[in-house]
Amino acid sequence: MNARPLKVAVLGCGVVGTEVVRRLHESRSALAARVGVPVEIAGVAVRDRKRPRDIGIAQELLTDDPLELVKRDDVDLVVELLGGIEPAHSLLVASMEHGKSVVSANKTLIAEHGAQLHETAAQHGVSLLYEAAVAAAIPLLGPLRDSLGGDDVTRVVGIVNGTTNYILDRMTETGGEFDAALREAVERGYAEADPTADVEGTDAVAKTVILASLAFHTRLSPTDVYREGITGVTAQDVADARSRGCVVKLLTVLERPAGQGEVLARVHPTMVPLTHPLAQVKGADNAVVVEAAGAGELLFRGAGAGGVPTASSVVGDVVTAARRRLLGRPVGAMAPTVAGQVRPMRELRSRYHLGVRVTDAAAALDDIATVLRVNDVRVDSLHRNRSVGPNTWVLATEAVLESDLCAAVEALSAVPSVAEVPRFIRMLDPVGQEALAR
Amino acid sequence: MNARPLKVAVLGCGVVGTEVVRRLHESRSALAARVGVPVEIAGVAVRDRKRPRDIGIAQELLTDDPLELVKRDDVDLVVELLGGIEPAHSLLVASMEHGKSVVSANKTLIAEHGAQLHETAAQHGVSLLYEAAVAAAIPLLGPLRDSLGGDDVTRVVGIVNGTTNYILDRMTETGGEFDAALREAVERGYAEADPTADVEGTDAVAKTVILASLAFHTRLSPTDVYREGITGVTAQDVADARSRGCVVKLLTVLERPAGQGEVLARVHPTMVPLTHPLAQVKGADNAVVVEAAGAGELLFRGAGAGGVPTASSVVGDVVTAARRRLLGRPVGAMAPTVAGQVRPMRELRSRYHLGVRVTDAAAALDDIATVLRVNDVRVDSLHRNRSVGPNTWVLATEAVLESDLCAAVEALSAVPSVAEVPRFIRMLDPVGQEALAR
Repeated sequence: MNARPLKVAVLGCGVVGTEVVRRLHESRSALAARVGVPVEIAGVAVRDRKRPRDIGIAQELLTDDPLELVKRDDVDLVVELLGGIEPAHSLLVASMEHGKSVVSANKTLIAEHGAQLHETAAQHGVSLLYEAAVAAAIPLLGPLRDSLGGDDVTRVVGIVNGTTNYILDRMTETGGEFDAALREAVERGYAEADPTADVEGTDAVAKTVILASLAFHTRLSPTDVYREGITGVTAQDVADARSRGCVVKLLTVLERPAGQGEVLARVHPTMVPLTHPLAQVKGADNAVVVEAAGAGELLFRGAGAGGVPTASSVVGDVVTAARRRLLGRPVGAMAPTVAGQVRPMRELRSRYHLGVRVTDAAAALDDIATVLRVNDVRVDSLHRNRSVGPNTWVLATEAVLESDLCAAVEALSAVPSVAEVPRFIRMLDPVGQEALAR
Repeated sequence: MNARPLKVAVLGCGVVGTEVVRRLHESRSALAARVGVPVEIAGVAVRDRKRPRDIGIAQELLTDDPLELVKRDDVDLVVELLGGIEPAHSLLVASMEHGKSVVSANKTLIAEHGAQLHETAAQHGVSLLYEAAVAAAIPLLGPLRDSLGGDDVTRVVGIVNGTTNYILDRMTETGGEFDAALREAVERGYAEADPTADVEGTDAVAKTVILASLAFHTRLSPTDVYREGITGVTAQDVADARSRGCVVKLLTVLERPAGQGEVLARVHPTMVPLTHPLAQVKGADNAVVVEAAGAGELLFRGAGAGGVPTASSVVGDVVTAARRRLLGRPVGAMAPTVAGQVRPMRELRSRYHLGVRVTDAAAALDDIATVLRVNDVRVDSLHRNRSVGPNTWVLATEAVLESDLCAAVEALSAVPSVAEVPRFIRMLDPVGQEALAR
């Protein structure tokens, strides 16, 4: 067996980078036993070499020249924890062109350039792994690629953003509005100072694109994913959900019914029945339900964020890439993906919760009923929500087309007895029966 | 890219084999796209070639000479679905010696000879994969090997036998005894005609050994695992569990606290709080909670048995092995494992439910209290179970040593006012705090 140590370059030393360096260092004897040779830190690229750091490695391992580091002959693996597109993209390409295997936790980069990065990896015979990019510590991408590689995944539904889950949880617990819950999340470190990517759903969209590539072997762009963040979710929505035995969750939903080519990919607030396993996911945890023709329904749950859990996943990829390196061959050459055929959101068939504020409840009912009938929106139940006054009708629809629902909402907005544009939230079925129009 | 098809030999064509053959055949175009070349069935070894089968493949692919099949030059991969030790063992060794990669679902064989089979695989540069051997369709072994390969797993707790879970579920739902629930399980196909391996826990023990090798990188023998089946679980135990807000589950528990070498491995009926995710696992489903120093608590849940889910996992391994084959290198070389240091069951620290039938409840209380105090068994709560008459004391202990508990039970049995040997069941803590003596 090759006794030369494998050398790892770490790019970025923030929250995750610090924990990765710590784990590589503190677990070095266990890692050496598992890989077969020692795994050593070749260098850590940081923005400011002079800043004092307590990460237990020699000061001279720090560098502010990441490009020079990844090109070094003695480096075998590069761990990229910079985030964002540049310079991460150029550095990963340079690493692979110089024959280094790479591990990344960068969901934005992989979502945007994953297919091309995989081509580069294949060309240069190196590994490209990024398990930590989705749902941090939860093993999800490996299982989709390997264990489910022979199955037909039909649906992936999950909570993949811990910040929004924490905020929605707080809104549910306190009955308060979004702004207050967001402030609390920022204060407690569950949200960044600029929480836009989380609360607007773009973070979840990037993860959705990555999940689609592994679940469906198709290449989507972030713009192919319908996106609706949680900034518009009100305390009233949360109360309405509760009265339906539901909680509001920001869900990622990917669907491709067996035998069909089109993928419907979406991220939006959803009413989830309390009996559903996803309703029980608290705080910054993540959970994903994968439905496959053969395997049935699989649930994965665990820590979706945080330096230590994310580092666990990154170091897992380092071990995997290092083992392959010793065997002389790369891992993680993704199944060839084809550009995804995207099903438009208007073809979604779902149940909807609908709140309609009116000027005169009794008089408006007939108008509402007419508009819904004309637009093929079948009503399952309706009642007046007396807790917010006599003039709000709350409806639940049967499974109807999103296009019909949107047309009905637009038509309702123009009805004189309707006081404002009606609000709606999609509802997840308790038994997982929500599906595309077949 | 190599355009020659990869050829698969399937050994055994029972429930799982039939579904594997069907999936390889029906999904052949999807599998070809994912692997890069077609994956074809080279032959299927069956006991009786003449028996009519509706598996969609040509009759001439059937053979009753598995050894000849695995030695054939055109065979690349061997899928072993025979079960048991022989002839499966010899056939797997012969396959690898002839340069074939192997996929197996044979938990008994892997538990008994896994380490030696991995050595043979490494010697001959072939892959050895067996994801389906534990928890059928749930991706569990791959995640432990890869994603968690850089972490320190401290605990694995799970339900890995669907038959016993179904039986205990039925006992909980009907309030009936074991024998009636077992009969029902056999009639409905959830238990085999000879259910010994399931109900006595030996099936779960084999899976426990495999989990230990991947979670702790240690080699255990089935005899290293403490084993207690469910044949002794009574309707009264189930009722007692209910009165404690628990259900009785047959759990696999593997523990190795961080920084310690010894593993405590056990399979026994356990009272699980209804709030625990494992309490919610119904019927023949499986679920496993993995606790790791970095990743925290991960939950995996899904179908733990059945031809179709198991075949999903087997074909996933076929895809993985086939991809590696095209890259010219094996996969699944397990981390080097060392013989496990086994912690004896008597050193377990757990809470216990204890039922003591006495001749005179009031008089016996002092005797019981004395025996428990002398044996260092601290009592958390006790009451008389009036539903079964005035003469049974039901106790819950604090976390105490198994050796102390057993000594106390033995001493109680000798007390004149105690009517029979007291019964006990270990209890799982709601918050996962049950642990080894530190």
